[in-house]
Amino acid sequence: MVDLFEEIDKRRLVVNDYLEELFVKKEEHILWEMMSLYPQAGGKKLRPFLAMISAGAFGIDEEEALHLGLSIELIHNFTLVHDDIMDQDELRRGIETVYKREGISSAINTGDALFALAFKVLTNTELEGKAFRELLHEVACSVLMVAEGQEEDMRFERTFDIEEDEFIEMIEKKTSFLFRACAKGGAIIAGASDEEKRSMSEYARKMGIAFQIQDDYLDLVGDEEKLGKPVGSDIRSGKRTLMIIHALNVLDDKKRHRLIDILEDENNTPAEVNEALEMLDRCGALKYAKDRAERYAREAKEELEILPESDQKELLKDLVDLMVRRSS
Amino acid sequence: MVDLFEEIDKRRLVVNDYLEELFVKKEEHILWEMMSLYPQAGGKKLRPFLAMISAGAFGIDEEEALHLGLSIELIHNFTLVHDDIMDQDELRRGIETVYKREGISSAINTGDALFALAFKVLTNTELEGKAFRELLHEVACSVLMVAEGQEEDMRFERTFDIEEDEFIEMIEKKTSFLFRACAKGGAIIAGASDEEKRSMSEYARKMGIAFQIQDDYLDLVGDEEKLGKPVGSDIRSGKRTLMIIHALNVLDDKKRHRLIDILEDENNTPAEVNEALEMLDRCGALKYAKDRAERYAREAKEELEILPESDQKELLKDLVDLMVRRSS
Repeated sequence: MVDLFEEIDKRRLVVNDYLEELFVKKEEHILWEMMSLYPQAGGKKLRPFLAMISAGAFGIDEEEALHLGLSIELIHNFTLVHDDIMDQDELRRGIETVYKREGISSAINTGDALFALAFKVLTNTELEGKAFRELLHEVACSVLMVAEGQEEDMRFERTFDIEEDEFIEMIEKKTSFLFRACAKGGAIIAGASDEEKRSMSEYARKMGIAFQIQDDYLDLVGDEEKLGKPVGSDIRSGKRTLMIIHALNVLDDKKRHRLIDILEDENNTPAEVNEALEMLDRCGALKYAKDRAERYAREAKEELEILPESDQKELLKDLVDLMVRRSS
Repeated sequence: MVDLFEEIDKRRLVVNDYLEELFVKKEEHILWEMMSLYPQAGGKKLRPFLAMISAGAFGIDEEEALHLGLSIELIHNFTLVHDDIMDQDELRRGIETVYKREGISSAINTGDALFALAFKVLTNTELEGKAFRELLHEVACSVLMVAEGQEEDMRFERTFDIEEDEFIEMIEKKTSFLFRACAKGGAIIAGASDEEKRSMSEYARKMGIAFQIQDDYLDLVGDEEKLGKPVGSDIRSGKRTLMIIHALNVLDDKKRHRLIDILEDENNTPAEVNEALEMLDRCGALKYAKDRAERYAREAKEELEILPESDQKELLKDLVDLMVRRSS
């Protein structure tokens, strides 16, 4: 039996050592100092873990997928730097955001540089031409999808007329695609078959959706201390989540309008936030979202049936459970 | 004898056709519509031209470097989209900037997506693993350099204490590196030797510096109608250019302070702009910059001696002349 947390920790140390090396230049150039802030501010480094374990599941040395994992981790961090500008967030992983610390222009530039660095790091993956181009294609397209998802998300902020399908597609783009690039990328590096690559891709797609639904669910029902933020902050900010979209579909006109009023109000009282939470609970929206996350998680694990038995296969399953059963 | 303008035009049509194909999705997704704005708003497409001619100069079919050229063109456009946010510019190539039209968040996102698309396009370059990774490394590192240069440029805006060397390094990063990726990349695709790659790299580095100095020079002495903007706009905005840095080095204390006062004033009268222009002329700064641009141009052309005689070699030389002798 392998322990997921121990195994995540083990890879995290390898990844952090590599990042340390990557950012030595930060003493010399302010841009590199800014670039190093988020990657070195903690985090579980789940994406590199996923890339390495996926490659290992096909029997190759998992270190062959280390640079892919690092590359996606850097891309993930670049999107965070830019997202913080868009959301005007001031705190991230317990530190001041690049946007707050250095302003919009430098934060744009820092994200761009992290993105470029991701592709530089990827060149350390030794593959023959066709397979390497397939890997690069996967990584580049995943970022295109993240950008599409981000744009859709911003446009959803201006309407309550959102179909559940288009909402799921949006979170799939924003969240799943980088996981997909890790899992499918690991399979590409291992020389897996098209069917195996497809399964790993679907595994990560479904896991990513489950992860995001759970993330939004926790915001409403989680433990404030564990989350490190007040419960219901998504109600206060009017964020569109699966719970909200479901509720707007099933509530009667009067309640729907009341819920929209609360979501649109920028200065909600705690009583109003609670009122919205109760509405979501009573109409079954919380349970609906929890069930959907569980179903995506179950389906994600089913995709792994294509793999031979191994420690890695168990870890990939456990990772799904971690994502939908975590409490923070 | 080949005619440079005809040859540029010929490639521009090929590049524009390809871009047309790339952006068919723009009817369906707002992100793609925004992404298509700058690449489809005109421009000479000099970067793809440079990539193709460089590859052709080593005897291979220049179309093999088309995707590299397109990739760098998309990167160039991504930097423009982000620069326009940083500079709060409202017009670009005669159209509203993405920033002005869609706001900061969507403009950030559009730039990011163009950057990702650049790498997707690059995967169409058929090379074996090692050469392809070398090409990707060149492209990724060139964007890192652009970001470093951009950051340095923004920091220079807050001081007048700038050494000429560090200024040249900054414009080299901001302007030369994408040209380098085209010229050296073309050589990589053609399987050129290390020495040949180095020469092409130096050629483009020097040409890029000459190009930027000339660009800043034209702002001060150009023809308003040809430029499409008022002469001396860099004086009004207080931009640090080689002319300014040289003048600050050679002017006496009194004149130096007067020049700094004008540059720092955000509401200069035409008389004050003229006063600064005359100071730059009298102290020899205009001539100094022109001479430096000419020297870089001459040295760029010398790097081409490594190439066998060909139409492409002549075009590469003519391209340098175009860049330092253009009047707009």
